[in-house]
Amino acid sequence: MSCHKAQPREIAASCAVVFLALPHTVAMEYAPSLLKLGVKVIDLSADYRINDPAVYERHYQIPHKDAARLKHAVYGLPELYRADIASATLVANPGCYPTCAILALAPFLSCGAVDRTHIIIDAKSGISGAGKKITRDLLFGEAHEDFRAYKVNAHQHIPEIVQVLARLAGGDVGVTFVPHLLPLNRGILETIYVTKQKGTDLQGLMSAFYKTEPFVRVRPQGEFPRIKDVVYTNYCDIGVRDEGTRAIIIAAIDNLRKGASGQAVQNMNIMFGFPEHLGLR
Amino acid sequence: MSCHKAQPREIAASCAVVFLALPHTVAMEYAPSLLKLGVKVIDLSADYRINDPAVYERHYQIPHKDAARLKHAVYGLPELYRADIASATLVANPGCYPTCAILALAPFLSCGAVDRTHIIIDAKSGISGAGKKITRDLLFGEAHEDFRAYKVNAHQHIPEIVQVLARLAGGDVGVTFVPHLLPLNRGILETIYVTKQKGTDLQGLMSAFYKTEPFVRVRPQGEFPRIKDVVYTNYCDIGVRDEGTRAIIIAAIDNLRKGASGQAVQNMNIMFGFPEHLGLR
Amino acid sequence: MSCHKAQPREIAASCAVVFLALPHTVAMEYAPSLLKLGVKVIDLSADYRINDPAVYERHYQIPHKDAARLKHAVYGLPELYRADIASATLVANPGCYPTCAILALAPFLSCGAVDRTHIIIDAKSGISGAGKKITRDLLFGEAHEDFRAYKVNAHQHIPEIVQVLARLAGGDVGVTFVPHLLPLNRGILETIYVTKQKGTDLQGLMSAFYKTEPFVRVRPQGEFPRIKDVVYTNYCDIGVRDEGTRAIIIAAIDNLRKGASGQAVQNMNIMFGFPEHLGLR
Amino acid sequence: MSCHKAQPREIAASCAVVFLALPHTVAMEYAPSLLKLGVKVIDLSADYRINDPAVYERHYQIPHKDAARLKHAVYGLPELYRADIASATLVANPGCYPTCAILALAPFLSCGAVDRTHIIIDAKSGISGAGKKITRDLLFGEAHEDFRAYKVNAHQHIPEIVQVLARLAGGDVGVTFVPHLLPLNRGILETIYVTKQKGTDLQGLMSAFYKTEPFVRVRPQGEFPRIKDVVYTNYCDIGVRDEGTRAIIIAAIDNLRKGASGQAVQNMNIMFGFPEHLGLR
Repeated sequence: MSCHKAQPREIAASCAVVFLALPHTVAMEYAPSLLKLGVKVIDLSADYRINDPAVYERHYQIPHKDAARLKHAVYGLPELYRADIASATLVANPGCYPTCAILALAPFLSCGAVDRTHIIIDAKSGISGAGKKITRDLLFGEAHEDFRAYKVNAHQHIPEIVQVLARLAGGDVGVTFVPHLLPLNRGILETIYVTKQKGTDLQGLMSAFYKTEPFVRVRPQGEFPRIKDVVYTNYCDIGVRDEGTRAIIIAAIDNLRKGASGQAVQNMNIMFGFPEHLGLR
Repeated sequence: MSCHKAQPREIAASCAVVFLALPHTVAMEYAPSLLKLGVKVIDLSADYRINDPAVYERHYQIPHKDAARLKHAVYGLPELYRADIASATLVANPGCYPTCAILALAPFLSCGAVDRTHIIIDAKSGISGAGKKITRDLLFGEAHEDFRAYKVNAHQHIPEIVQVLARLAGGDVGVTFVPHLLPLNRGILETIYVTKQKGTDLQGLMSAFYKTEPFVRVRPQGEFPRIKDVVYTNYCDIGVRDEGTRAIIIAAIDNLRKGASGQAVQNMNIMFGFPEHLGLR
Repeated sequence: MSCHKAQPREIAASCAVVFLALPHTVAMEYAPSLLKLGVKVIDLSADYRINDPAVYERHYQIPHKDAARLKHAVYGLPELYRADIASATLVANPGCYPTCAILALAPFLSCGAVDRTHIIIDAKSGISGAGKKITRDLLFGEAHEDFRAYKVNAHQHIPEIVQVLARLAGGDVGVTFVPHLLPLNRGILETIYVTKQKGTDLQGLMSAFYKTEPFVRVRPQGEFPRIKDVVYTNYCDIGVRDEGTRAIIIAAIDNLRKGASGQAVQNMNIMFGFPEHLGLR
Repeated sequence: MSCHKAQPREIAASCAVVFLALPHTVAMEYAPSLLKLGVKVIDLSADYRINDPAVYERHYQIPHKDAARLKHAVYGLPELYRADIASATLVANPGCYPTCAILALAPFLSCGAVDRTHIIIDAKSGISGAGKKITRDLLFGEAHEDFRAYKVNAHQHIPEIVQVLARLAGGDVGVTFVPHLLPLNRGILETIYVTKQKGTDLQGLMSAFYKTEPFVRVRPQGEFPRIKDVVYTNYCDIGVRDEGTRAIIIAAIDNLRKGASGQAVQNMNIMFGFPEHLGLR
């Protein structure tokens, strides 16, 4: 539920979990009161995704107002942190670009299969990823029949991607991230380039890693997802092409489902012990 | 040329014809000074298109500031008023919807071939017809994958259409006009419905009327233009389907060329005695 | 369910109602066997929509193979024929254009509020209305950034519209129908022009007619639906503008839901006595 | 001019340069006869772009029929081979993806500024890049609202890119190339990732390299081209972001102009000694 008008106490009285659909930098003002009232919070903003308040301040241009709690928030990516989410009181729902990138890379970084210091993520998102702002850039006359990069290696989702990948890899990672704007309404597709040791079976690692996951579908060797495959679903589809010492990983999600509200519902299901796919199929 | 910054005197010194690319209600403040300096003016706004200042005020919500000159302005549709344009000092460049509608109907109304009291114009325009405003309606996320009518029988181009058609028909006309917004960048297509006497040969009348016109192309019986046929050109393409006592006329133009700047250049060529197609092919 | 591969007997054994999703001219070969086996049939093709086999043959270029049954088939538009559908064994699910046009006109023709001899339907449909054919016309490079009329007053849905409107009006109707192809995936919007007696309250008639209908939403005076309002729903949204002796009606549906499978489900619900909105909200 | 119907002798009689707009694998059947007649040929197909007939056969699935001439054909990229083009009798007009990639990389590979063994090209093209084939993939209903990779690191333009880059770099190059299909009509944008020595001034190298080129526009530090900047022009626009030991280069062209016919005209101008921009501005 959204909390724009209601006061924390009213909300707390009526629900055990709150979806905090507030803008970045505002969510951190509401969360503390809600948590104090004993409500569990799933925050859809970026406010509790970054562990280090200095990094947060650098990317969101405002000091964090609830810094002490950052290290207690659980990053709400069920495929990696399901057990923590189940017992969490504050879940930071991941960003759309990070969800797609991290799911594509987790099977390889968590076991050292690819070089963690040289990862290139070429990301493309539909217009809804830019929110509901009324700006010249988002006019039909500007975006239709156009395609462009933006915030080239300077997007605020980069520290979120780097933080989670580094934790998985057990060491610093080198990430280059370039987002682009597609002339379509919804969907993200990311083409990711990595280097690796000859002989490692990436396809096998990927399939094994997500074998039992309800919302990740790994494509057979040589096949890749397209945006049409995932829109209006909570799936992340992934395909791998292994070129010996290099590899290409292509992953796609619906930025508004698995990249936002769908994942929030998945997290809520886990927190309540509901079947994970409730309301998502 | 545009006159946003320059003063009338400077402009007058350097050119014999001025393209007044000013917003409606602003053009009428500049034109008088320019004309006094001996410059010819082609006004791309609506300020000099309507003869009756009361009608102007009703549709543009502002009293006309140069009302006396309204009856001297020439309506810049070369196919109908070429001789007047050649000797004009002030040309009111037609609106995009009116250009398309009037060209489609002129051959029939000027000779009484269709019922002037019952004309239906179903018009569809690309997004550029709405100008460069930054509004919610014109966002990619709003207009893409959508289609809608707007200003249903209440568009400010209606009095302009009615005035010219009535002059051609020699009596009052009854026009129903519904514009719609297409999810594409440029182009107008109008589907026009009329009633007629059985036996009148509309196809023949249409072909004869535009036989020597450089920028009107009449389609053979049974064929109709599409928007792709005319974008980036100064052509108006027209097709007719005669159903005995009823007929359908379909016409298409590029709203930014024949519906705006292309027609202005055509008018300038006529005023200077240049070949009419100069710069337009 | 689709019947492409299964044999009639197998189908009959397993279901009480069959959705016949077969191409026009093929459905009439399957329906007789299914009906003989005691199965109720909802035919999504055009094969049982037209009562007169001669009219069918003229528009579908093939003699009807089950002509005797045509007069027993029920036209599956619940808002008009709910009781007949409830007891029918063979329901002809309406075409997409006819669904939208008939719902927009029924309240007025059924009570003589508008001139039944002079109805103009300017229809616009998204690309999915053209089916899954692989033809040049439907290529992205052809349809994107384009808009065009097709089958101008010659579309095969015209006899279906005329037949139902004539039945409602109690006499011959005069319909002009021009379909157009929109550069978007789904949705139909029709702008309909009628003449009427001064004084008749069209808005009131429309609202009263659909007051209890679950899937028709009448807009308040001065408001009109857009395609975005109805896509992915089973609703038909309608707005009216009354101009005294003339009126404009604008209606919109999702051609794949209310214009096809959604309406088929609605019909099935009625035939089984289920809540009409089951599976449709 | 196209040669589909005319015979070589007829063509030769009337022109000094022939644009061979024939499909791949057909052009090599016509070129020898034309050259024998003393006509200069600009081949828009891929038939004379690859020097090694074995490589050609592997990628185009047909043995080369004019293999001896391959080493005499000049690669028609004016920015690199202007002098050779001026005196050439047979010019192989470059492919669209290679034009964009090679122009983006030439300033750095030709002087060893970036690592030639590790180049990643993430390419995105509008639908017209796929030609005029009537296939399911290119239907509006398939491509609209979709985005996907295709021929992942297996596109037939790869050997062309590799051959030219290797020649520039003076040694083997390692290229990963992934093309994607954009839901828009025309334009290519390529995002290219390279590694480099800290300290090298890429922006300076790029600006100097294209200082006098009429059709390459280098963006100032921190700015990048979008597809809208180059469609309907013969320009290649390029922007660079230098990250110390890595860099991102973004380049855009109109695939039908600088990526095809515009470049052919540019080559013809050079071969005739005309001003290079004749007909291209």
